[in-house]
Amino acid sequence: MDLNGFMIASIAVAVVAFAFAAWLFDWVKKQPSKNERIEEVSKYIREGAAAFLNHEYRVLAKFAGVAAILILLFLPSPIWSGNPINNIIMALAYLGGNVFSAFAGKIGIKVATIANGKTAEAAQRGIRPSFLAGFRGGAVMGMTVVGTALLGVAVVFWITGDTTALLGFSFGASSLALFAKAGGGIFTKTADIAADLTGKVELGIPEDDPRNPAVIADNVGDNVGDVAGMGADLFDSNVASMSAALVMGVALDNLSGGTMNAAMVFCYGAIGLLASIIGVACARMGKNGNPTNALNSSTYITTAIYAVLTAGATALFNFEWRIWGASAVGLLVGVIIGIVTDYFTDDRRSPVHKTAKASEKGPALTILSGVSYGFISVIPALVGIGISALVSYKLCEPLGEGYALYGISMAAVGMLSIVGMIISNDAYGPIVDNARGLAEMGDLGDEVLEITDSLDSAGNTVKAVTKGFAVGAAGLTVIAMLGAFISEVNAAIAERGLDIPKIVGFDIMNPNVFFGMLVGAAIPAVFSAMLILGVDRNAQRMVEEIHRQFDTIPGLKEGKKGVVPEYDKCITIATGGAIRELIPAGLMAIVATLVVGFIGGVESVGGFLTGNIVAGLLLALFMSNAGGLWDNSKKYVESGHNGGKGSEAHKAAVIGDTVGDPFKDTAGPSINTQITVVSLVASLMSSLFLTIHLI
Amino acid sequence: MDLNGFMIASIAVAVVAFAFAAWLFDWVKKQPSKNERIEEVSKYIREGAAAFLNHEYRVLAKFAGVAAILILLFLPSPIWSGNPINNIIMALAYLGGNVFSAFAGKIGIKVATIANGKTAEAAQRGIRPSFLAGFRGGAVMGMTVVGTALLGVAVVFWITGDTTALLGFSFGASSLALFAKAGGGIFTKTADIAADLTGKVELGIPEDDPRNPAVIADNVGDNVGDVAGMGADLFDSNVASMSAALVMGVALDNLSGGTMNAAMVFCYGAIGLLASIIGVACARMGKNGNPTNALNSSTYITTAIYAVLTAGATALFNFEWRIWGASAVGLLVGVIIGIVTDYFTDDRRSPVHKTAKASEKGPALTILSGVSYGFISVIPALVGIGISALVSYKLCEPLGEGYALYGISMAAVGMLSIVGMIISNDAYGPIVDNARGLAEMGDLGDEVLEITDSLDSAGNTVKAVTKGFAVGAAGLTVIAMLGAFISEVNAAIAERGLDIPKIVGFDIMNPNVFFGMLVGAAIPAVFSAMLILGVDRNAQRMVEEIHRQFDTIPGLKEGKKGVVPEYDKCITIATGGAIRELIPAGLMAIVATLVVGFIGGVESVGGFLTGNIVAGLLLALFMSNAGGLWDNSKKYVESGHNGGKGSEAHKAAVIGDTVGDPFKDTAGPSINTQITVVSLVASLMSSLFLTIHLI
Repeated sequence: MDLNGFMIASIAVAVVAFAFAAWLFDWVKKQPSKNERIEEVSKYIREGAAAFLNHEYRVLAKFAGVAAILILLFLPSPIWSGNPINNIIMALAYLGGNVFSAFAGKIGIKVATIANGKTAEAAQRGIRPSFLAGFRGGAVMGMTVVGTALLGVAVVFWITGDTTALLGFSFGASSLALFAKAGGGIFTKTADIAADLTGKVELGIPEDDPRNPAVIADNVGDNVGDVAGMGADLFDSNVASMSAALVMGVALDNLSGGTMNAAMVFCYGAIGLLASIIGVACARMGKNGNPTNALNSSTYITTAIYAVLTAGATALFNFEWRIWGASAVGLLVGVIIGIVTDYFTDDRRSPVHKTAKASEKGPALTILSGVSYGFISVIPALVGIGISALVSYKLCEPLGEGYALYGISMAAVGMLSIVGMIISNDAYGPIVDNARGLAEMGDLGDEVLEITDSLDSAGNTVKAVTKGFAVGAAGLTVIAMLGAFISEVNAAIAERGLDIPKIVGFDIMNPNVFFGMLVGAAIPAVFSAMLILGVDRNAQRMVEEIHRQFDTIPGLKEGKKGVVPEYDKCITIATGGAIRELIPAGLMAIVATLVVGFIGGVESVGGFLTGNIVAGLLLALFMSNAGGLWDNSKKYVESGHNGGKGSEAHKAAVIGDTVGDPFKDTAGPSINTQITVVSLVASLMSSLFLTIHLI
Repeated sequence: MDLNGFMIASIAVAVVAFAFAAWLFDWVKKQPSKNERIEEVSKYIREGAAAFLNHEYRVLAKFAGVAAILILLFLPSPIWSGNPINNIIMALAYLGGNVFSAFAGKIGIKVATIANGKTAEAAQRGIRPSFLAGFRGGAVMGMTVVGTALLGVAVVFWITGDTTALLGFSFGASSLALFAKAGGGIFTKTADIAADLTGKVELGIPEDDPRNPAVIADNVGDNVGDVAGMGADLFDSNVASMSAALVMGVALDNLSGGTMNAAMVFCYGAIGLLASIIGVACARMGKNGNPTNALNSSTYITTAIYAVLTAGATALFNFEWRIWGASAVGLLVGVIIGIVTDYFTDDRRSPVHKTAKASEKGPALTILSGVSYGFISVIPALVGIGISALVSYKLCEPLGEGYALYGISMAAVGMLSIVGMIISNDAYGPIVDNARGLAEMGDLGDEVLEITDSLDSAGNTVKAVTKGFAVGAAGLTVIAMLGAFISEVNAAIAERGLDIPKIVGFDIMNPNVFFGMLVGAAIPAVFSAMLILGVDRNAQRMVEEIHRQFDTIPGLKEGKKGVVPEYDKCITIATGGAIRELIPAGLMAIVATLVVGFIGGVESVGGFLTGNIVAGLLLALFMSNAGGLWDNSKKYVESGHNGGKGSEAHKAAVIGDTVGDPFKDTAGPSINTQITVVSLVASLMSSLFLTIHLI
């Protein structure tokens, strides 16, 4: 089979995934729903989420329009100095990346906000149908995201045959992910904090009281942050890892005159999606089984199917076994990182217990304990990423020059191969979380609540494993992007006939590199700080709006029948503010890349990316895990330990959880996207950095 | 003047510094003291601090003994495979580094615990004599530390003529600094937290109530953490920067057959100490002047004297002007880093105000605000260190191969040149802080308190500038240590006739390097976590002891006259616990270096050191600045803003301050030492890593 054959096969598998997603969507929609209250609230959430997405996409369209014009003018090279067709292709690819990702996000949100109510009602018929409704809702998202990613990469590459255009497509996906993930993260925590401050604290009304104008925004937040944001993030990683692998693979193929390396990327990508389809189709709870096992076992099934099928394909098509090995190592390490990192947030383990215990002595010790375990929790992923990069490099090094870095990129492809399954599991989380809330609002009774509780807790548990994959894969992907950056630089040197030696690496002892590294290391910290401060400012705005509604809408505060707050106003504020706060943070990261590049040239940029990756992974792991730890410690106390609800320990644990919220839902998970965006900017601008720099 | 001449001159200047320190010490001791209560408490603190130091030094002696035996057996090469004389010299140099640093710490503590009472009483005669007592007390420490460092480096190099022995001396200084800084940091926060928990929280007695068995330990803590710890830390940085510069300078001299580069290190070091002596001698408050100006202006005077004298020496002895330039750039950037970083902790600036404002809405927002500004505060130092490394490299690069890295090390020497002045200012802080407490306990009246308050606040303000120097210098020093590591590796290759190409740098794209970098980046986080958790555990032990005393000593709780708690028991616990908690953290860092080195060889170690430096600087800056910000926000609220004392904002600000305490006094400042220790271990073991490694 030639390269075109593999691309056609990829497109075919993507189409199968879409068909499967459509069937699942239809299945979910057909699930019975009778409870009016659930229907009503569910509708509000659906409309709110749609309002957010529409607003976000409108702003994004402007942003993407401006970016597309800049790309048209300047990339891959200034339009007046090269072939303008390339610039047009680049701009279109960039827009394509935005559109494909936006489409996947839209579908995901749509099904998630339907599946939540269905899951709640299905719980009346038992845990198994309820599980299936939640899981299949999530799987629609999983199938759509991965199908779109594979389709997009295959189509762009088929049409253009140009890997730089792929980077443009990937950049489109990244800039959308920045909006979706960081913007969604700000949105969700804005609403969460504002709802708590005005509702629970000022008025003393319960969390989900419909009188609170922020309550729908709060529920919408779970969906836009966890479903749409996570989907865009993994779409981005998936596209970036395939693009990086293709940039290097095609460069190798050009040297050897073959197409094996490019073909492998599509082949493995298609098999990964196929394995996810089978895994999702198999997912089912045993009669008295528990949902955690059901979720994890389908992940393991997918992993096994992937390993076996890729081995078969490698034998059949005479691919290099060493590269298969790299990809398998990536997958294996992903599983290990997930399982080990889980230790730090698992409520049956010592870190959660000790943090709960520390809370007995007040919030300062809750914070210190969480920070400490969060710091320690970075080890498994950092060491795991380091080892998998090392092993895959050494495995592929004997294949010839350039294969070592390509091996790392294939390890990233391996880790991300089963991302369809991962997203299915991840999107399951917010669906059953929402279902739990709806079951409570719909008065479905204690038995149903017990079921949704157990589904919800399974969602939190498997999240650890999936998050391990996501972080590990992002880490390997950005290392691969560093390789892609070098490829791009060397391509520019060759193309423009510059009298500069080819770049083979970045020497730490070169002060341009070191300077870049120190600046790059500062960026994730500053980016995180800007997002966290943005959440705070935005929450203040929403609190003002809530006060205005309470003051001006007669009967609202008192809960007069028929008086409904203007939910949409809060959603508008959360949306507008999220985007307003996000843009400076995103621009800061991009401008810093440009400044460093125009000061120290490609060497400084190489250092910058490295510092950015190292510090970014460190902070992302720290914040995500500390946040998860505080969240679970609070739940652990609430379940009756260390004094239980209302105790001093509980108050302290709640403070820890509040600190952890923007850590784990806003800043931490957005850092991956920040790194990818910056890497892509660097690759796309490499040709300019090469000739224009100060030192 | 030949190299020996410069070494003799260095020793002479060191002797002058000792004589000056002795005169200052004598002057401080001669200051009148009459208040019995102050005398009594001051004596307790003196004895407690002495008890801590004695205990610490006893444990350290065992530790150093074991380390010396290991060094004797294995370094610079296994004793059975090389010249055993080298091993003996190495072990002795190591012990010398310990002893010299311990001596300086002992003197510093001694004078600080005398000067505190003198400063308090002098305040009755006005602010000028009080300022002078505090400042001259601090200056004894400053002169002793720098004098000992210069003397030690000169003597070791004069006797041995061997730069590897210097690294041994430097390693001795580092391992003592690890005990003094991290151990002192655990001690001080242990006592602080235990005293607060049992005194203020449980019994509701004031902070410095003599009934509390932990109260003396708490006051001792200020001295052992801030005076002895800080002194050992800067002794360590000072020795490390000179050693790194000498390692590279001597290597260059050997190539050219001259002695210029080694001579410059001693010449500039001696001039720095001379400039500090003059600066200290000139320090005086104007008639109505304020203490901040007095402190800062003597720093600037010292800086100017240094720049002028080194320029003169460069002209006189025909040194390279480019190297002088590198050293001047280091000094200048140090000043700038200090001034800019000050913004984030200054109570007249927006970050402190905004954090105080956030506290009105509860402790979670205090924490989030502090974390955010702490993250942003890393920029000036990281960018500043990057720029000074870049500029000094480029300045010295034209001088020939190897000069560029030597230039960076001379920038570090430049930044640290005025460290005598820096330490004088820094040790002034805890002295006047203690004086303030003593003035309160001694009932010296409001006028005196006003004076000590203003002296204390000046101490906090200038701390920012001095801390900027310390961090910047540490950053450049560790970059220089990376250069020293390469020098050592290449020396080992040449000496042993190995068939390996010389190392010229570390390529980020080499997976051994990258693997090391990721692991190295995790170490400062884990090290910090272990220290913070250690503080918590240790505080629990002390709380138990306090409860035991309250339960078993009749009349203690009630404050019966003549009943005195067993202060020394608490001091023993704080001391023993500090060391017990510290050792695993220190060993973890060292063992990680060894593991990485034996897995991936010198390349992985190069990456490891880089990751360690980048992540270490990031976390050290973040924790130190966030801690300082929370501290000042609390003081800002206490001075009547945002509701003042007792308000909700105050409660929240106190929680922020408690979180910040181990950040800024235990973990943050210990990271520098951790980095230095690891760098030295790497350099000393380089010959072994070269031949024994897995991949």
